[in-house]
Amino acid sequence: MKNEGGKVKIIPLGGLEQIGMNITAIESGDDIIIIDGGLAFPDDDMLGVDLVIPDISYLRDNKDKIRGMVVTHGHEDHIGSIPYIEKEISIPIYTTKLTMGLIEYKLGMHGLLENVRRKVVTYGQIINLGCFRIEFIRTNHSIADSCALAIYTPAGIIVHTGDFKVDYTPVFGDVIDLQRFGELGKKGVLLLMADSTNVERTGYTPSEKMVGKTLDRVFDDIRDRRLIIATFASNVDRVQQIINSAYKYGRKVILEGRSMVNVMNIASELGYISIPDNTLINIDEAKNYPDEKLVYITTGSQGENMAALSRIAASIHNKISIVPGDVVIFSSSPIPGNEKSVYKVMNELEQKGARVIYHDTHVSGHACQEELKLIYALTKPKYAVPVHGEYRHLKRHSELANDMGIPKENIKILTCGDVLEVGEDSFDIVGKVPSGGVFVDGLGVGDVGNIVIKDRQHLSENGLMVVVITLESGSNQLLAGPDIVSRGFVYVREAEMLIEQCKDIAEEAVQRCITGSGADWSKIKACIREDLGEFLWQKTKRRPMILPIISEV
Amino acid sequence: MKNEGGKVKIIPLGGLEQIGMNITAIESGDDIIIIDGGLAFPDDDMLGVDLVIPDISYLRDNKDKIRGMVVTHGHEDHIGSIPYIEKEISIPIYTTKLTMGLIEYKLGMHGLLENVRRKVVTYGQIINLGCFRIEFIRTNHSIADSCALAIYTPAGIIVHTGDFKVDYTPVFGDVIDLQRFGELGKKGVLLLMADSTNVERTGYTPSEKMVGKTLDRVFDDIRDRRLIIATFASNVDRVQQIINSAYKYGRKVILEGRSMVNVMNIASELGYISIPDNTLINIDEAKNYPDEKLVYITTGSQGENMAALSRIAASIHNKISIVPGDVVIFSSSPIPGNEKSVYKVMNELEQKGARVIYHDTHVSGHACQEELKLIYALTKPKYAVPVHGEYRHLKRHSELANDMGIPKENIKILTCGDVLEVGEDSFDIVGKVPSGGVFVDGLGVGDVGNIVIKDRQHLSENGLMVVVITLESGSNQLLAGPDIVSRGFVYVREAEMLIEQCKDIAEEAVQRCITGSGADWSKIKACIREDLGEFLWQKTKRRPMILPIISEV
Repeated sequence: MKNEGGKVKIIPLGGLEQIGMNITAIESGDDIIIIDGGLAFPDDDMLGVDLVIPDISYLRDNKDKIRGMVVTHGHEDHIGSIPYIEKEISIPIYTTKLTMGLIEYKLGMHGLLENVRRKVVTYGQIINLGCFRIEFIRTNHSIADSCALAIYTPAGIIVHTGDFKVDYTPVFGDVIDLQRFGELGKKGVLLLMADSTNVERTGYTPSEKMVGKTLDRVFDDIRDRRLIIATFASNVDRVQQIINSAYKYGRKVILEGRSMVNVMNIASELGYISIPDNTLINIDEAKNYPDEKLVYITTGSQGENMAALSRIAASIHNKISIVPGDVVIFSSSPIPGNEKSVYKVMNELEQKGARVIYHDTHVSGHACQEELKLIYALTKPKYAVPVHGEYRHLKRHSELANDMGIPKENIKILTCGDVLEVGEDSFDIVGKVPSGGVFVDGLGVGDVGNIVIKDRQHLSENGLMVVVITLESGSNQLLAGPDIVSRGFVYVREAEMLIEQCKDIAEEAVQRCITGSGADWSKIKACIREDLGEFLWQKTKRRPMILPIISEV
Repeated sequence: MKNEGGKVKIIPLGGLEQIGMNITAIESGDDIIIIDGGLAFPDDDMLGVDLVIPDISYLRDNKDKIRGMVVTHGHEDHIGSIPYIEKEISIPIYTTKLTMGLIEYKLGMHGLLENVRRKVVTYGQIINLGCFRIEFIRTNHSIADSCALAIYTPAGIIVHTGDFKVDYTPVFGDVIDLQRFGELGKKGVLLLMADSTNVERTGYTPSEKMVGKTLDRVFDDIRDRRLIIATFASNVDRVQQIINSAYKYGRKVILEGRSMVNVMNIASELGYISIPDNTLINIDEAKNYPDEKLVYITTGSQGENMAALSRIAASIHNKISIVPGDVVIFSSSPIPGNEKSVYKVMNELEQKGARVIYHDTHVSGHACQEELKLIYALTKPKYAVPVHGEYRHLKRHSELANDMGIPKENIKILTCGDVLEVGEDSFDIVGKVPSGGVFVDGLGVGDVGNIVIKDRQHLSENGLMVVVITLESGSNQLLAGPDIVSRGFVYVREAEMLIEQCKDIAEEAVQRCITGSGADWSKIKACIREDLGEFLWQKTKRRPMILPIISEV
C-alpha cells in the first residue's frame, strides 16, 4: 500500500495511567475507528470503586465521524467498557467469533444487544470503515480468536499486534500468521504498535502445550485425590487441556464459578472447546463419584474475594469444602498487585489440609524479547509506538525497537489523550484530548470522583467524629448539644473521658463564636473543626474527619 | 547435654496469622525466656493501623517467671515490639553488639533507655537465665551480627536458627559456624526451629559478595551519570559494598533517608562499616561535585510512601530531583504485597527520564532448600518446628524435614498462642494462651480493634450519610430536620435530587415511629437506617453507613 501523502492521528484514550483500559482512536479526515474498548480495575487507593472506564468525551464530541470499533480479543481489558460506551454512542463492532460471543454476553447483561450493530469477521478478512481498511490477522494469546490488525490508512499501513505471543504449537487453531506479517513488511509498514507486557523477559514464551504436559504429569502422579484447578475463565485453551487430561485419566469435570460457566457455555456453543461425552458433570452429581474421579475447574486464581476458589478456601462455599489431601493447582500466575491475596488463599487452603501446586502450571500469553524482535524483523516498520504495559515496559520496548534499527526519534511512548500525527515524514504529538478514567461504583458512572475518594481515604484512615449542636433561631442560644458520635475512630467505651473532653472543647468553640447579634454558621463549624482537630492530634496523633452539624429550631 | 527428663514449653506469641511478629516464649518450671520481640506491618484491610504488636497478656500474667529476652538479629520483625513490651514489663535483653545498638536506638526514642537492663554478648558466649543456658552462634543474614541460639533446657538442646543463610564469603565477618551446629548435633539436639522463608527455592542462596560484583560492573559501565541506589537501611553489608564500589570508581557517597542515616550512624560507631576518608559527604555538599561523581544511597526500596526514593520519584523531595539520564538501582526485591508500590515508583522514575536497574542487584538473606538440609544434616534433631514464613512455607519446610528423616509425628506447625510441650518422649500441643495482634494507631495501643476497623472498612467502601433530627422534649414533635450530610458517598452537587428524596424518606420514617405518647429513639434510628438503606441500595447499589442522630430540645 502506497502512502497517499495523507496523515493519520493515533489517540490512546486509555493505556498509560490507566493500565488495562485499552482503547485507541485512529483518525483521518472525517473518519475515526476505535481499537478495543477495555476497562481498568481500580487501584488500591480508589476506595469502593468497582471499575474504571474511559472518559470518552472526545468520541462523544466526534461521534459523527466514528465508523466502527475493531476488537483484537475478548479479555476484560479490551472489551470491558464496551457496554458503557455503547450506552452513550452506538458504534458498530467488528471482531472474531469468540470475541463477539463474549461481547454479546456483556451487551445482553446491559440490555443492549438489540441496539448494537455487530459483524463477525474471520482471519484474513478485510473490512472497510470510512477511509480505513482493516485486516484481521491470526495471532496466539491466552484466549482463542485473538488477532492483530493491519490498518490501511491514507498515510500508510499501521500494524497493531493486540496482545500476542508466538505459539508454534497452539492448543486451538494455528500458529500466528507470521507470513502475513512478513508480506506486510515487504509492502511497507508505516507504524507498528506492539504488545510490551513481557518485554523484560529474555527469550521466548513457552507454548501453551507445555502446560498440557505438566497437567498430564500431575494427573498421572495424583490418582488418589480430588483435584481442584483454578485458572482464568477466559483461557479456553487452558480449560480444554485440563479437560483433555481429565478424560485421559478418567476423571469427571465440574466447572465452578459464574464466569467459568458463562465463558465455557459461549465457547462450547461457538465450537471453541470440545468436551468428550459424559465428561462434564453438574456440581450436584459430584457426590455420585469418588473424590479421586473428580476434577473441579474454578475461578479465583487471582485470589479475588468472592470467586469460587476464595470461597472454598474461606469455607464459605455452599457446595465444596476442602478435605485433607485435596490437591489444588493454580494454573495462573498472580497479576502484579494480587500477590498477597493469592498467597492468602494458598495459605488458607494448605491450612485446611490441601496441597497447593503452582510451579510450571502456567505459561504467559505475551511475547518475550525474541518474539518481539521477530515481529520487528518481519514488519520493518518506519515508526514504533509500544503499547500494553506500564511505563517501564514501554521504555524497555522503545529500547528494543531502537536495537532493531528504528531511530530514537521514530519511537514514541504515548500517554492517555495524546494526539500523535503520523505521516510519511511526520511523527509528532500535536495535541491532547480530554481523557482519563471514569469511576463506576454500583450503578453510578462518574458520580464518584476525586473529592469523594479523598473523603473515603480520610475516613478509612482515621474514621470520623460528628458534632451536632442545636441553636435557637434568632437568639442563637445553644439549645442542645454538642452531641458527639464517632465511628471508626476509637473504641468509644474505652474513650469515654476523651469524648467528654471533646464535648467541652466543642462547646467552648461554639460559645466563642456566638455573639449577641448573630451566629456565623461556617465560622462556628470552622472553630469546632480547628479546636477539636488540634486537641485530638495532641491526644492521639490521629486526625479523624470532624463533621460539625448545626440545626436550628 | 543429656536430657534430664524434664519438659519444656514452646509458646509462639506471634508468627503465623501475624507474619513478621516473631516472638516466642520458652518455659520450663518457674522460668521463661523470650526469643525476639518483633512487630508486623498491617495488612491492607487493617485501615489506618500503623503497626501490629503482640498481645503479651501471657507474659504479663507470668512476669515473675521471665528471666530475659534473647534477640537473634536487628530487623524490625524481630526487635520492633521491644519498646512496647518494655513499657509494660521490664525484661533484660541479651544480644550481639549491632543488634543491641539498634534496640538501644529504639528504646531511646521511647525514653526507655534507662529502664532496661541490657547485656551485649559475643558469638560463642553462653549466658544463664534461670534453668536455661543460651549460646549465641554465628550465622549469616542480610544484617550483620545475626545469630542462631542453642538453648540448653532441662528437656534437652533446642536450636533456633533465627533468620539465616549460609554465606561462605560474607562481606563482614565469617561464615556461619557450621562446625558448632555439627558439634551440637553430635551432643544430641532435641528440637530444631529453623527459618522457612526461602524453603520453596531449590539450591543455595548466592553470597552477598555476588551483589558486590554486579555493583562493580554497574559502576564500571556507568561513568557519566549520577547513581541513586535504594536498599534496606538495615543491610549494612550492602551499603558497605556500595561504598566500596563508590570509592573504587571515585564517587562521593550521600546517605539519604532517616533510617538510612540512623542505622549507618549506629553501624559506624560500633565498627560494622568502614568508610574511607573523604568518601561520605553531606547532601548539601553534593552541589560541589559533578553528577557523575556522586552516588546517593537511599531508603524506599519497597516503595514506602514517605521514604526518600518515593519522594524523589514523586518530585516532592526537597533536595533531590531526577534529571534525565540518572540511573536508579533497586538493590532489593519487593516483599510480597509491596510489588505494586515498587513498580509505581519505578514507573515514576522512568517517566522523569531515569533509567531503573533491578535485575541481579540483590540476593536474599534466607536459606534455600540445600542450606536447610545442611542444617538438618548437621544438627540431626529429634523434633522440628519450622518457623518464619507463611503457612505454605511452614508446610513445605515440614516436608523437607520429613525428607531429612524426621518422622511426621515429630514435626509440628505452631500457630499463635499454641503451647507445645517437648520432652524426650513427648511432643504435643497441650494448650493455648491468649495471643494475637494489638493495633498501634498514632499514640493509641490497642484502642483500635475489630469494630473500629470494620467501621473504617464500611466508610472506605461507601462513605456515610448523617441524618440529624431535632425532637421537642416531651411532645416528641419533629422540630427540625431531617438534615442530611454525606461524605465519601456521592458528588452532592450532582445528587441534589437524591438527597431531597432521602430527606422525605427519613421524615416519613420518623413520623411513622413517633406516637402520641412517646418516641423510642432506637426505633426511630432503626427505621431511618432501614428505609434509607433500602432506598439507596435500589437507587445506587451502594450501602453508605447511615448515621441517624437525634437531639432533643
